[in-house]
Amino acid sequence: MGSVDASETTVTGWAARDATGHLSPYTYTLRKTGPEDVVLKVKYCGICHTDIHQVKNDLGASKYPMVPGHEVVGEVVEVGPEVSKFRAGDVVGVGVIVGCCRDCRPCKANVEQYCNKKIWSYNDVYTDGKPTQGGFASAMVVDQKFVVKIPAGLAPEQAAPLLCAGVTVYSPLKHFGLMTPGLRGGILGLGGVGHMGVKVAKSMGHHVTVISSSNKKRAEAMDDLGADAYLVSSDADQMAAAADSLDYIIDTVPAKHPLEPYLALLKMDGKLVLMGVIAEPLSFVSPMVMLGRKTITGSFIGSMDETEEVLQFCVDKGLTSQIEVVKMDYVNQAFERLERNDVRYRFVVDVGGSNIEDAACTCS
Amino acid sequence: MGSVDASETTVTGWAARDATGHLSPYTYTLRKTGPEDVVLKVKYCGICHTDIHQVKNDLGASKYPMVPGHEVVGEVVEVGPEVSKFRAGDVVGVGVIVGCCRDCRPCKANVEQYCNKKIWSYNDVYTDGKPTQGGFASAMVVDQKFVVKIPAGLAPEQAAPLLCAGVTVYSPLKHFGLMTPGLRGGILGLGGVGHMGVKVAKSMGHHVTVISSSNKKRAEAMDDLGADAYLVSSDADQMAAAADSLDYIIDTVPAKHPLEPYLALLKMDGKLVLMGVIAEPLSFVSPMVMLGRKTITGSFIGSMDETEEVLQFCVDKGLTSQIEVVKMDYVNQAFERLERNDVRYRFVVDVGGSNIEDAACTCS
Repeated sequence: MGSVDASETTVTGWAARDATGHLSPYTYTLRKTGPEDVVLKVKYCGICHTDIHQVKNDLGASKYPMVPGHEVVGEVVEVGPEVSKFRAGDVVGVGVIVGCCRDCRPCKANVEQYCNKKIWSYNDVYTDGKPTQGGFASAMVVDQKFVVKIPAGLAPEQAAPLLCAGVTVYSPLKHFGLMTPGLRGGILGLGGVGHMGVKVAKSMGHHVTVISSSNKKRAEAMDDLGADAYLVSSDADQMAAAADSLDYIIDTVPAKHPLEPYLALLKMDGKLVLMGVIAEPLSFVSPMVMLGRKTITGSFIGSMDETEEVLQFCVDKGLTSQIEVVKMDYVNQAFERLERNDVRYRFVVDVGGSNIEDAACTCS
Repeated sequence: MGSVDASETTVTGWAARDATGHLSPYTYTLRKTGPEDVVLKVKYCGICHTDIHQVKNDLGASKYPMVPGHEVVGEVVEVGPEVSKFRAGDVVGVGVIVGCCRDCRPCKANVEQYCNKKIWSYNDVYTDGKPTQGGFASAMVVDQKFVVKIPAGLAPEQAAPLLCAGVTVYSPLKHFGLMTPGLRGGILGLGGVGHMGVKVAKSMGHHVTVISSSNKKRAEAMDDLGADAYLVSSDADQMAAAADSLDYIIDTVPAKHPLEPYLALLKMDGKLVLMGVIAEPLSFVSPMVMLGRKTITGSFIGSMDETEEVLQFCVDKGLTSQIEVVKMDYVNQAFERLERNDVRYRFVVDVGGSNIEDAACTCS
């Protein structure tokens, strides 16, 4: 059954054991701290919609037991001898990936998130052959390349959603030259990523239109998040009036939807940036992109450099995310609520402040 | 029935009278030469696939009689008093559009081809209320903004296909930052535009792969056009071996086709540039663009500035197009052959050297 190395640390995380996705305490060991490793005690971990797909095996590649969580903020408790950037006591963050090949074109261009050999923070296998486990756990050990410092002025629970949702909207705006003040942006879908999109785009000085299928979210978009305009996609008159008006649309809709109504909203050279992993094909007719030289593209989280940038950007702009902080024993209920979109806008689990060995759930 | 202004010139063009698309001599008048107008005697006019769609009313918006032709090279015979750029005797070209609003964002950015009020060279209505008529005619009168000088060193019949097919491939390569030597490009489809794509991309110093559904065009792609590689899209092993290898693909296929096999060929940040006007929707799944930040886009001809650039580019690079020069009385047969893709690669009609009043056809 394998022997435990004396220098390995035993930790507890909350793991799914099967495709029901139900999380409960699970004990496992962290690898011995390597020369470039950082060991962190987890303080907070955000819940991303991808966590639901993973624990429920929606993508068909889940391995159990699986400790999810990839918006991790913790405190450094130990560093390997070749780690100079971090020291014990630092508040740090870990996101979606914890390894890459360091040799391919994306790695060499410091966009390691596009490395074909990237190692996911959980539900993957590390270079030592051990399964990776995520942030709903007492501690993690992570190569320093995939650790970022949380800057002063940012509360750790506020930082958590920036490590996935935040950098996911920041990265394409930066990469596609969309940080200029005065641009007109659209945010399609108002979940964890969409709400961050509104906030990041507003902080860049953009005129932000939230696009939604009904009027239900108008008040929260305009009043709570500070959007400049609200467009109901099912209202043909409103859509026609808004044609040719946007420089970009961040499309966070995670299900099949038509692209043409949104392409029509874009100005010449406008960009439709897809963020939702959707298994069903999306479609459009070619003149919709040709006449106006419009772009359909997508983006996947962001680089480690961009992760550091978005954290500092939020400090500089005083940008805060809207979160609901819960304890570990509420995590299953939080997953259920997220699945039915009943959260404004991100759950963050107070891992450090929870008794994570205790599976006694306060919820039903 | 309206009176003919004494100062209007009577000309003969070859017009379609109905959706059979059959062309025959048709007499009409050109507008009186305005202050900024250039009058040209047509020498050569290329046949573009769009001409077929227009004369046959495939797009449902054709008005007859219609004189097609938008790859026009001629000699200036008269200029208006405010024309300083051209004078009688100059060899000049006219392409796909002959008017624009001059006030919208595309017009102000000198990409007038994206103006929503652009006026097409034929099958449109000019500002004076007269129908526009194209280049299969003895003469045209065109606003100087839409006239380009054919540079010394370029034969007029060689210049004709550059005014549509040539600038159509040059424009996106320039706009999307794809002129750097050493890039690896793919050309999908080997018709008039595709063959020009191979030649322009090779002249930019790219490694060019022609992608085709069968091996039929291998010899002409490699030997006649000088492509570096040939990829059979129906061969799964070849396609898998070529995955993640191209910086861009110029997709000239004018019919519905899957996009995912070609997206898979692109490297990170690679661009799929659509050139075919296709009424049926094209589709893809979102991870194909997200994981690799790939772009699906399109482009429509090019600006007047880019038209001048591509003409000079071809002179500088010694680039020639492969054309078959025919007389006016062969035009209907040429249209039929183009429709069944039986031309290597562009028909150019020697309008100036034809007796265009004579409808006696040498062909069946």
